[in-house]
Amino acid sequence: MTNDRFLKACRREPVDRTPVWFMRQAGRYMKEYQRIRAKHGILDVCKTPELAAEVTLQPIERFALDAAIIFADILLVLEPMGLDLTFHEQKGPVILNPVRGGDDIARLRRVDGEAFRFSADAVGAARKMLDGRVPLIGFAGAPFTLASYAVEGGSSRNHVVTKQLMFGQPEQWRVLMEKLSDGVAAYLQNQIRAGAQAVQIFDSWVGCLSPGDYQEYVLPHVASLVARLKPEGVPIIYFGTGTSTLLPLMRSAGSDVLGLDWHVELDEAWARVGFDVAVQGNLDPVTLFAPLPEIERRVADILNRAGNRAGHIFNLGHGILPHTPIEHVEAAIEFVHAHAHR
Amino acid sequence: MTNDRFLKACRREPVDRTPVWFMRQAGRYMKEYQRIRAKHGILDVCKTPELAAEVTLQPIERFALDAAIIFADILLVLEPMGLDLTFHEQKGPVILNPVRGGDDIARLRRVDGEAFRFSADAVGAARKMLDGRVPLIGFAGAPFTLASYAVEGGSSRNHVVTKQLMFGQPEQWRVLMEKLSDGVAAYLQNQIRAGAQAVQIFDSWVGCLSPGDYQEYVLPHVASLVARLKPEGVPIIYFGTGTSTLLPLMRSAGSDVLGLDWHVELDEAWARVGFDVAVQGNLDPVTLFAPLPEIERRVADILNRAGNRAGHIFNLGHGILPHTPIEHVEAAIEFVHAHAHR
Repeated sequence: MTNDRFLKACRREPVDRTPVWFMRQAGRYMKEYQRIRAKHGILDVCKTPELAAEVTLQPIERFALDAAIIFADILLVLEPMGLDLTFHEQKGPVILNPVRGGDDIARLRRVDGEAFRFSADAVGAARKMLDGRVPLIGFAGAPFTLASYAVEGGSSRNHVVTKQLMFGQPEQWRVLMEKLSDGVAAYLQNQIRAGAQAVQIFDSWVGCLSPGDYQEYVLPHVASLVARLKPEGVPIIYFGTGTSTLLPLMRSAGSDVLGLDWHVELDEAWARVGFDVAVQGNLDPVTLFAPLPEIERRVADILNRAGNRAGHIFNLGHGILPHTPIEHVEAAIEFVHAHAHR
Repeated sequence: MTNDRFLKACRREPVDRTPVWFMRQAGRYMKEYQRIRAKHGILDVCKTPELAAEVTLQPIERFALDAAIIFADILLVLEPMGLDLTFHEQKGPVILNPVRGGDDIARLRRVDGEAFRFSADAVGAARKMLDGRVPLIGFAGAPFTLASYAVEGGSSRNHVVTKQLMFGQPEQWRVLMEKLSDGVAAYLQNQIRAGAQAVQIFDSWVGCLSPGDYQEYVLPHVASLVARLKPEGVPIIYFGTGTSTLLPLMRSAGSDVLGLDWHVELDEAWARVGFDVAVQGNLDPVTLFAPLPEIERRVADILNRAGNRAGHIFNLGHGILPHTPIEHVEAAIEFVHAHAHR
């Protein structure tokens, strides 16, 4: 590995400078990506190993990033479990046969690594193309976020149907979350065995829950997932948004790294979860639309808040937004390099 | 005033039992409301004093609530300032001529009470119909939330255009926020002088900001608005969602009551902002879709967290959702009465 800053920071080991990568660093803001998407649907790209690997490498070829993340979607694990997943240009992901009760939950299939051959092949192809330049991150949706998509049938503003199941049929909810955790465990184990050198669990919607509901209905399943991944020996990152009141609970799930969104100040949040866990974050993605001096000021502020402690990975507080000016992405990475401590 | 529990709790005076009202307590979940909306658009109802007053009273006639809130929309202040407001069935509010730069901001008109005659008349009509049974709350959008609607042209997921203005043209942003604060001050003063016995400032979108950005770009304008309303002598409630990391700053804006959403535990949040301010909240609105015993358990938990301290007003953590079962709303109010301390 030519550049192992990212992996060292995940393990809170000293690094020569703060590593940086961006969620959704491969995506719509890049012309290279748009050119591929003009010819292929998003699911085709995810499931064609050569295309997924090519897209994974696009930001690595262009920017001085310290990690690659496999191009995929957080919902891919749902398909082999029996859910019909499509993508609408406007609405985003849609589940055509959403899970609405005990029968639907009972019908969800248990999956093993064989169902994810495409994913292992994509990871293998990307590792080969990366040729040791930077580490490759695998990822999946977290059980709650997958449950919300599966139950609502797509993205949701208030998660009413999901919470109705959770509050009204807690036993069915438990079965659903166990099945999803099993599926995610198999999917991520498969990515790791194919060559992923770290994994990130995306709990994008978990911020809709109160701390009490997170603790009762979600945390045990994330903790069990993390415990099953630990023996694989790669760093585990756990990330959500709108989680400021959930962070201490999320930390207890046992991941090596906690992702922070921009609603918290990095120093305050890090102190709250404890400096014995690494943190990743936390620039507001909209900052990348600001003038360059403003971007620089905000990058420097985050690095100052991280200070000289081992275990900070610079990232956004959520994924890069469509239409983000690519020169601003490039500049932000350079600002991290210029200001990074250690 | 037959029932002044709500006003006493706003002032942190002892009450015989915890007062309760619900944001959006007049709305789509009620058949009485749907009957009126079948014949009249939402803006027509807001601007026809007899209709607005009738809808305001609907939940008061049906439930044992401790306050009424005038039926209106948080965006009404934008129309006399020169913005064209309409409502789409799916998309919600739309501004046809959004504010995009200095020229648009310069064109925004300063307004006085005369522009809000319809609102004063609605407040007067509702006060007459209430006949002293419970106090009447007036309300408006907060400057940031109004700015976001005005700049984006409607509701927004990432508030990119709003933050671009804020980060990239801070001087223009300041002018916009001052004009909006002036407009809201005039609008709320007008409601108070017409008979509103408390006012709530809704900062529905402010949770998209980091604490640093809230402090720099929003807080001074809310503080100035609150300072101008204080001499009117009625309690001021300041509410937002997704604000857990902003609460201490929001408290410093000077309102008498802080609204809490369900992402915080009421006792922990109250301790953090200080017991020398009243708090309102904070049941997750989706709870009203749960089975009755689950609703009761959650209502009791919030009341237990509030304890025997003066200054708690029971409410949801956000507005009542469409399709909420009306019997569950009724039951939740009864549970508050049954479990309320003092």
